[in-house]
Amino acid sequence: MTNKSTFVNHKDVFLDDGFWWHKQELINEKTIYAVMDRFKETGRFDAFKFDWKEGQPNQPHCFWDSDIAKWMESVAYILEKKEDPTLEATVDELVDLIEANQDENGYFNIFYTVIEPHNRWKNRSGHELYTAGHLIEAAIAYYYATGKDKFLRLMCKFADHIEQVFKINQSATFATPGHEEIELALVKLYRCTQETRYLELAKFFVDNRGCNTKDQFDSWVNSKYTQSHLPVREQTTAEGHAVRAVYLYSGMADLALEYNDTALFNACHTIFDNIINKRMYITGGIGSTQVGEAFTIDYDLPNLTAYTESCAAIGLVLFAKRMMQLDNEDSIYADIIERVIYNGFLSSISLEGKSFFYENPLEIQPELVTRHKSVTKEGTHLPITQRLEVFNCSCCPPNITRFIASMSELIYTYNNGTFYINQYISNKSETNINDANVKIKLSTEYPVNGIVKIFLTGGNFDRIALRIPSWCEDFTITHRGTIIEAQVTNGYAYLDYNDIEGSELKVEFKMKVQLVEASPHVQENAGRVAVQYGPIVYCLEAIDNGNLLKGIRISNENTWSVEYSNYFNANILKTTGYIKESSYDGKLYTKASNKVKKKPLHFIPYFGFANRGESEMVVWVLADILS
Amino acid sequence: MTNKSTFVNHKDVFLDDGFWWHKQELINEKTIYAVMDRFKETGRFDAFKFDWKEGQPNQPHCFWDSDIAKWMESVAYILEKKEDPTLEATVDELVDLIEANQDENGYFNIFYTVIEPHNRWKNRSGHELYTAGHLIEAAIAYYYATGKDKFLRLMCKFADHIEQVFKINQSATFATPGHEEIELALVKLYRCTQETRYLELAKFFVDNRGCNTKDQFDSWVNSKYTQSHLPVREQTTAEGHAVRAVYLYSGMADLALEYNDTALFNACHTIFDNIINKRMYITGGIGSTQVGEAFTIDYDLPNLTAYTESCAAIGLVLFAKRMMQLDNEDSIYADIIERVIYNGFLSSISLEGKSFFYENPLEIQPELVTRHKSVTKEGTHLPITQRLEVFNCSCCPPNITRFIASMSELIYTYNNGTFYINQYISNKSETNINDANVKIKLSTEYPVNGIVKIFLTGGNFDRIALRIPSWCEDFTITHRGTIIEAQVTNGYAYLDYNDIEGSELKVEFKMKVQLVEASPHVQENAGRVAVQYGPIVYCLEAIDNGNLLKGIRISNENTWSVEYSNYFNANILKTTGYIKESSYDGKLYTKASNKVKKKPLHFIPYFGFANRGESEMVVWVLADILS
Repeated sequence: MTNKSTFVNHKDVFLDDGFWWHKQELINEKTIYAVMDRFKETGRFDAFKFDWKEGQPNQPHCFWDSDIAKWMESVAYILEKKEDPTLEATVDELVDLIEANQDENGYFNIFYTVIEPHNRWKNRSGHELYTAGHLIEAAIAYYYATGKDKFLRLMCKFADHIEQVFKINQSATFATPGHEEIELALVKLYRCTQETRYLELAKFFVDNRGCNTKDQFDSWVNSKYTQSHLPVREQTTAEGHAVRAVYLYSGMADLALEYNDTALFNACHTIFDNIINKRMYITGGIGSTQVGEAFTIDYDLPNLTAYTESCAAIGLVLFAKRMMQLDNEDSIYADIIERVIYNGFLSSISLEGKSFFYENPLEIQPELVTRHKSVTKEGTHLPITQRLEVFNCSCCPPNITRFIASMSELIYTYNNGTFYINQYISNKSETNINDANVKIKLSTEYPVNGIVKIFLTGGNFDRIALRIPSWCEDFTITHRGTIIEAQVTNGYAYLDYNDIEGSELKVEFKMKVQLVEASPHVQENAGRVAVQYGPIVYCLEAIDNGNLLKGIRISNENTWSVEYSNYFNANILKTTGYIKESSYDGKLYTKASNKVKKKPLHFIPYFGFANRGESEMVVWVLADILS
Repeated sequence: MTNKSTFVNHKDVFLDDGFWWHKQELINEKTIYAVMDRFKETGRFDAFKFDWKEGQPNQPHCFWDSDIAKWMESVAYILEKKEDPTLEATVDELVDLIEANQDENGYFNIFYTVIEPHNRWKNRSGHELYTAGHLIEAAIAYYYATGKDKFLRLMCKFADHIEQVFKINQSATFATPGHEEIELALVKLYRCTQETRYLELAKFFVDNRGCNTKDQFDSWVNSKYTQSHLPVREQTTAEGHAVRAVYLYSGMADLALEYNDTALFNACHTIFDNIINKRMYITGGIGSTQVGEAFTIDYDLPNLTAYTESCAAIGLVLFAKRMMQLDNEDSIYADIIERVIYNGFLSSISLEGKSFFYENPLEIQPELVTRHKSVTKEGTHLPITQRLEVFNCSCCPPNITRFIASMSELIYTYNNGTFYINQYISNKSETNINDANVKIKLSTEYPVNGIVKIFLTGGNFDRIALRIPSWCEDFTITHRGTIIEAQVTNGYAYLDYNDIEGSELKVEFKMKVQLVEASPHVQENAGRVAVQYGPIVYCLEAIDNGNLLKGIRISNENTWSVEYSNYFNANILKTTGYIKESSYDGKLYTKASNKVKKKPLHFIPYFGFANRGESEMVVWVLADILS
């Protein structure tokens, strides 16, 4: 924590071209409306009228407030960059309804007002503090985007009420939220309002977790499910419900920064290590099981049943962002962010921007959904094979929209001496850092290729730091036609700012097809490799390669061709693999054959799977050892 | 069905040495007593006193009668071959208790007399007809073994009552049993008593299955669970609860034989094909899932979660035996029997003969039982990793004892012209076939090696038929010092009986280590092979080879050594495989390495796994293609 850094706020960073600009345009033009329409159809908007009656359709659920809150927060990020009177009017209407229906004491939750008012603050699994957190985040974003402070004032009143109930009176039947989120929201609220009570309340919730006997939960889970098994500073592994976990860890990291709390930072660091070195899929997905939507044990990363919730991928980025702020000298955090955003996060939204995955498996065998047809009981859960436009529990879609709408914040950080470029996303930006105007222009087709042009002027920096992606084995930095050497430390190349200010820097991260293997402890992937090109993890789909994908083999001597695909706005990879020419003649077991036949293979980016109909899919491909 | 054959009854076949004689000795001396002791401790014997009262421990369960019935049947087979006054007295006591507590109308079931007398014949899942079937089988076996007919008479009375209730009055709330077993038992009862009403009742149950709207079942399963989805003659795939299924198919095959029912035979044939070519593990295990203990879909054969109940393996042999009787000219039935008895059946009992597996998985990763420790809910079921002495539902242990005690019946069959040797199990036997005395002596160390000496005299046969095991690529038949050629048709070598009667025949089935691959449709096993030597399937255990077994690789160019192990009473196999020298340095994902290092490997018979403590285990091993 010796080198804390600050983000250049997403408000100042304008994507102007390239991969993520296209995604933001899709969100702005299509997805935000599609999510709104589905939420209207399912009664989520009408629920804010607080007039639902028994017997009517669409009974509000206890976390519907948060679905809409994340949608409102998404709109705020969109409005930062462009006008959209329809969206803005819709949010204003919602804010008016919130004002009209908020309790006099500041309380706000649709379910616990319309359906079960007698059960307020009595059920730790009731999501009241979770929805409060999302409403607070939305209110802050809307205030920053529009300058309108009504929503923010309403949510401050709600936060004051929460402080009264949980910290001052301690009158709730539980001490800390069953689903974390309020913690990081309260830190944001403190940063927005400078009201330290909110920061202290966040600390109160984090410090009390795992320490309070009032904190019971549903009987079917144990205390690890809600990360309540130990005081947070004593936790060393990522446990329980994955989204709850990473939201908590994000709040912990925020507090480590604000309070300079080394014990909290160390816990975050240890847990982050546990995630990325033992409990994370190659796609950056986390949460191996549908049972509790949870982390399981080290190296347990089944592909077919991977739960890897979209919200958990987002949460891992939120955690990594905060760790990057605390420890920017290590590129691991930005590397993990890159792994998630191009893979396990991006798979969650369809290419046409209207449908979503809640789970992002690393293997699909469509016929296995009928595995238990002999008995009607559901049996082993398998992820769905096609994206949906809305879910009963539809937390992911608006989380995806708010994440993409605000992701320009992932690019730049700075501290006293150094300006960091963490992600290579085209943008044209202007900001004020330490009372100096800074202009930045970054142009790249990344991740289609690794060429990045950077122009920086203004500011008072000693150095700029360029992240060298961990996948990159060879790169060049060119300035004024000359290749320059840079000192690379912990994944960042450092350049003297005086040397390059005001003139273009051209960086090329050489991309080649890479075969990646998992730790031998991941027995699921023994004998298999994943194919990566730049930051993108690839997969095989039956639609291109036929069925029985798990028998396809490649080797380290394969030659590959890389072709840009307009459809995926990314490269596809072609090679010739092979399959065994089995002596199979309809018999189940036969003498092993050593004959093989060649097979042309067509790899697509993992993020693009399941866009062309239901199909078998694998990420991990059999590989032969040729040394 | 043109070549129906008859078994040489187990009563006439005396194992006198070798592999299965050792197993029978273990059953006779140890296992039968161990099972008895556990059943006494758990109240199963006392339950026959019909004096259990509310509040007492060990409340009788609705299928406890069948646990004891199978134990009694086991005793009968033991008494056929040797005296054991303790066991015989114990059965006699039980028979007296049955007589004392049987209803006047013939009904017998402990649970539905002591606990829920008002619910007799009202619950299709109540197992009353299943327990009746096992009691009938036990009574017949005891009559054959001892000549005592009391038990048999009591069970005839019970069968008469069942006929009255189900066929004549149709007064039960259901038409056919929820758990099949009575069908094959009634055929046996007919064969024993020559009372055709019993055969007709069996046919009645089989014909009505899938046709009667009275046949509801528990709400959580559909009609496939009990094979009631279609009239049996229209069924083409093995569906639902695997034990119920194979017991039904066995009854169907019995009736096909008795009634010369081609439609029934064809259904059996189609279903048998479906099992062995699409739904059977290489060990002969069946039933891929714990959900409903059921068959799933074609080629769905997961190793780690394989359910493969011990009783289902036994049931598959019962079915195959009957198919062999109907179609003895095809060796497939005897081949499948061999596959089951040396592998997926034999794994169900510990080497010391006192503990049992209910499930026989093809892979064990012990740490995965803690997979869901973050949440207390059980989550995905995994088989236990160590055998137990008794289960709450303890159907398997006494099924295993009765099977081993009677398995000498698997060896010989005959029809008008041909005497078949189907299994190579040492024995010295004398029987009467078509009014002629036949003496047989078969000596072999099979499956330790493939040398079999056969001496046959007497009888009126044209030919003898020796099964050539399907794994055997090379064999010789020697007679009076000369290798003789035999005509091999559908897996049997036919020899002129006149040529060899009264002099020794020496057959050698050449054994070598074989690598076997699964159909490419079994994606679970893609890139992997199983190792077989003779009829025995092998596995790797961590206790010999260290952990992380799934990353171990072998190739078709390996050299092997074969060593006899006294511990397993079978061969172990040694070779040098290799593992990848990963560039793994604590990181989860790294650039794939093409370096390998050698590793000595120690394969043990699959049937012997989990006898030396909890250990990782795999059957399917990574294999490299070298052509």
